[in-house]
This record gives sequence, structure tokens and C-alpha cells, in this order.
Amino acid sequence: MLVNSRIVRIEWGDCDPAGIVYYPRYFAFFDASTSALIERALGMTKHDYLKAYDFSGHPLVNAHSRFLIPTRFGDDVRIDTMVAKFHRTSFDVHHRLHKNGALAVEGFETRVWVRGDPLKGTMKGAAVPREVVDRLSRD
Amino acid sequence: MLVNSRIVRIEWGDCDPAGIVYYPRYFAFFDASTSALIERALGMTKHDYLKAYDFSGHPLVNAHSRFLIPTRFGDDVRIDTMVAKFHRTSFDVHHRLHKNGALAVEGFETRVWVRGDPLKGTMKGAAVPREVVDRLSRD
Amino acid sequence: MLVNSRIVRIEWGDCDPAGIVYYPRYFAFFDASTSALIERALGMTKHDYLKAYDFSGHPLVNAHSRFLIPTRFGDDVRIDTMVAKFHRTSFDVHHRLHKNGALAVEGFETRVWVRGDPLKGTMKGAAVPREVVDRLSRD
Amino acid sequence: MLVNSRIVRIEWGDCDPAGIVYYPRYFAFFDASTSALIERALGMTKHDYLKAYDFSGHPLVNAHSRFLIPTRFGDDVRIDTMVAKFHRTSFDVHHRLHKNGALAVEGFETRVWVRGDPLKGTMKGAAVPREVVDRLSRD
Repeated sequence: MLVNSRIVRIEWGDCDPAGIVYYPRYFAFFDASTSALIERALGMTKHDYLKAYDFSGHPLVNAHSRFLIPTRFGDDVRIDTMVAKFHRTSFDVHHRLHKNGALAVEGFETRVWVRGDPLKGTMKGAAVPREVVDRLSRD
Repeated sequence: MLVNSRIVRIEWGDCDPAGIVYYPRYFAFFDASTSALIERALGMTKHDYLKAYDFSGHPLVNAHSRFLIPTRFGDDVRIDTMVAKFHRTSFDVHHRLHKNGALAVEGFETRVWVRGDPLKGTMKGAAVPREVVDRLSRD
Repeated sequence: MLVNSRIVRIEWGDCDPAGIVYYPRYFAFFDASTSALIERALGMTKHDYLKAYDFSGHPLVNAHSRFLIPTRFGDDVRIDTMVAKFHRTSFDVHHRLHKNGALAVEGFETRVWVRGDPLKGTMKGAAVPREVVDRLSRD
Repeated sequence: MLVNSRIVRIEWGDCDPAGIVYYPRYFAFFDASTSALIERALGMTKHDYLKAYDFSGHPLVNAHSRFLIPTRFGDDVRIDTMVAKFHRTSFDVHHRLHKNGALAVEGFETRVWVRGDPLKGTMKGAAVPREVVDRLSRD
């Protein structure tokens, strides 16, 4: 599977009064990491790939994280992201966030490839396009 | 177990370009819901209960959410929060977020009762005080 | 002018490592306060008033805040919001955030009533509807 | 004056249902940009410069932004940040956010160099150290 790595600087504003990352921020980092992975695989931004494949997004049905080592402002962490498995209309994403080489946070998501409008109640899962599967499956 | 319910208004700024909640916001709602539960059980704010019990907080080692029904800005959702189980130095929290009476999002957390400074590497789990267990265990 | 007051609980996750509110959060509080004011004046949620008046929103061209007294998690603050002045296609909003009765933060915004799609570059200012002006101008 | 430039990718999660940046996020970008400027001038992270100069931070007393051109997810914007003026215990910061070479958002801040604990009410302005002024004043 294609793995995308990116460096994220933990900012002062990502941290809480304990001085460590306010954990909902990890999910924001992971969401951006999933987009970055797909952007790299498809060679276009999320804004463009939503149009190119005519779909509404890849909302989550499941998110799970394990927090092993706290991170704090000033840390530069590395997030490695890959698809762990494809299903017909959904896919599992795996994130590993490293601090100084050690696994600090791990994230698992299941996302659905959807068409339609979530606000109008017409949102439905659609088959993940073959090309998308292929490009994300490359080493 | 004591259950605390609170109503949360989903705001425009909680939502993403799909018009539905940007999912990391659910974790922020749940974090505040955990504090609200403990505040109610102990009869003081988080600011005060950190002092009263002389500890540094209850950071997560695990967070898991299932997203069943999308919510959007203007929705008033109800979040029911309770401790599902106590361990010696940690506890499991269960959140159920309802929209129009239907379960829309479910959250599960494992939190550790910690002493010491996370920034100095002196953070350690401590036994959850008996009184805290008792007050959160009431019906 | 109509003044809408709401109580906002400052949460742990709104605060930074100094233990006080991370100031971008004040702008999020103010944005929700502007919506709450209009919702009260028109008797419907933002989701519904965008439809009822067929417009795209009221984005800002200007935001200014003065920070007088720090607030911290556990504080319940009161935000009073009113329109300060109407222009043809825009309006000025004034927010006063009080902590224990003292003015802690003051916010000033200029917002435009827009039609069209900001993403397609077709967004344009439109006259603020007479009814909206009237309802927000009541005492 | 020293100018620090950084590229910020606008993420899906930074945007609201109109598809453009939720404006409080600009203030978060600017806060990180101020830290990045000082970090570059002093050659250490914020975590380290707070210790090295033994102070509590540089909270704002004033923030002002003008929003000229909307930005959306997928945009890579450039933020140029510099100190506009030094006062004895405070300093003015100027941010210019460019999209495709055009000025899209402008931010102005006044920040105080503080010692003491904001939570204990002992926070007070202190003279900005000579060395800090010198390093930020270089071209």
C-alpha cells in the first residue's frame, strides 16, 4: 500500500492547560493526513478530486485512537498514513504518529465513499473507483 | 451509574464544507461532557476538582467513536455521559449523542487519573479516589 | 437594537498551556453569538434563515477584538450581542463578553449579506432585507 | 525588521459549510505565525524560548483582521509575519496572508511580554528583552 508521511508541528494552540496536545486535534491531524494520502495518490487536491470523481467526500463511520506518548507544543511529529483495507464502498485507514522515532499515537478509521447530499438525506455509499483503489494500493 | 445529560447546539463553525459536523468536534463535545459529568458528581468545576483532589487531569489512552447519523448546524443534540467501568487508576466513559431521539454518535474513552507533570515526564497514574468512584457510581 | 445574551462555559479544550482561553476561540464564540442574535430576531435557526432569505451567509470583512481580562476553563461568561449599525449590504456587530460582571473581551465585526457561491467566485453583497433590519433594530 | 514567511495548506477541517475558511482559523494561523517568527529570530522553539527568557508568554490585548479574498480547502497560502513596532512591554505584529500572490487577509496584533501566572492573577507586563528586540529588528 502507498504510505504518505508528513511532518506536523504541534502548535501552542493545539495544546491544553496540561501543556500537551488536546486530543481532538489528533483527529484533525489524521483527517488532513487521509486527504494528503489521497491527494498524493491521485495527484490533485481534495477540492479537485471531489470534482474529478464526482462524489461528496469520505465521511467516517468509525474512528479509534490509542494515545501512547504525550506530545507538546514545539514537537515535530511524523504521521505515516496508508489504507489498511478496501471494502466495496468503504476503506480502512491507518495512521501512525511518531515522536522522535517512537510511536506516540495510532489512529484507525473506516470511511465511506459517498455520493449525494448529507444535508438532504440523500447521502449513500458508492463503490470506491477502481483507479482510486489501484493508486492507493501501490507500494 | 450517574448519567449526566447535556444539550449541545451544533454551530456553523463545527461543520465542514459538506455541511455536517467536522468529526473531531465530536471528541471536543465528549471531552467537555466527561468534565461535566465529574463536575456534577463532585459539585465543583474542573478547575476546582483538579485542585481539590490534587491531580493533573484525566488524559485519554483510548478513544473510539461510531458515527451513525450525521448532524448539522442548527441541530440541538443531547449527550448522555456515564462511567461504564472503573479500573484502579483508570476509568471507561461512555457517551451517547442523540438527535431527535435517535442515537447518532457513540463514544467510548479510557482515561487515566494522573499525578505529576506531563511535560516533565513525571506523569503517572494514581488510584481514582474512593469518593470519586462512589459519587460517579450513584444512580 | 435587539440585544441577545447567552452564557458560554469556557471549557478545558478552549484553553492553551497558559491555562487561559486560546484567543481564536473568542472569535468562534462571537460567530455563534451573531448567529444566535439573528436566530432570535427571525425566530428560526441559521440553517433555516439561510433558506428563508435565500442567501449564502454573512461572512466577515473585518474583525477586531480587545482582550481586557483573561478567562479560564470553568468560567461561565455572558456574551451580549447586538447590531451596532446597518449599511446597505453589510452590518456592524458588537459583542461584549463579561466575566463576573466585568467587561473581559470586546468584539467588533463587519459582515456582508451575500448571495452566490464563494467557491465559484460568484459571491456578491446583497441588500440586507428590510424585515431583517427591522427585527434586529427592535429594543 | 525580520520577516518570516511560511506556507499554510488550508485544510477541509479549516472550512465551514460555505466551503471557505472559518475565520477564527485565520487567528490560529496568525498565532502560530507569530511563534514561528520569534522561533526563527531566537533559534529555538516556543517551548524553549519561554524557558530561556523566563516568561509566561505573549498574550494579546488587541487583534484586528481584514478579510479581502476568501480562501478554501486545497489552497496553499503564504503568510508573511513581522513585528511592526516595539513598545516597552508590548509589540505590534503584522501578518499578510497571500493567495496566488494577492493579499487575501491582513492581521494586526498587539501582544504583551508577560511574567507571572494568568490563573493566579499575578500576570504582569515585563520589558521585552533587548536581545529579543534586536533579533526581531534585523532585516
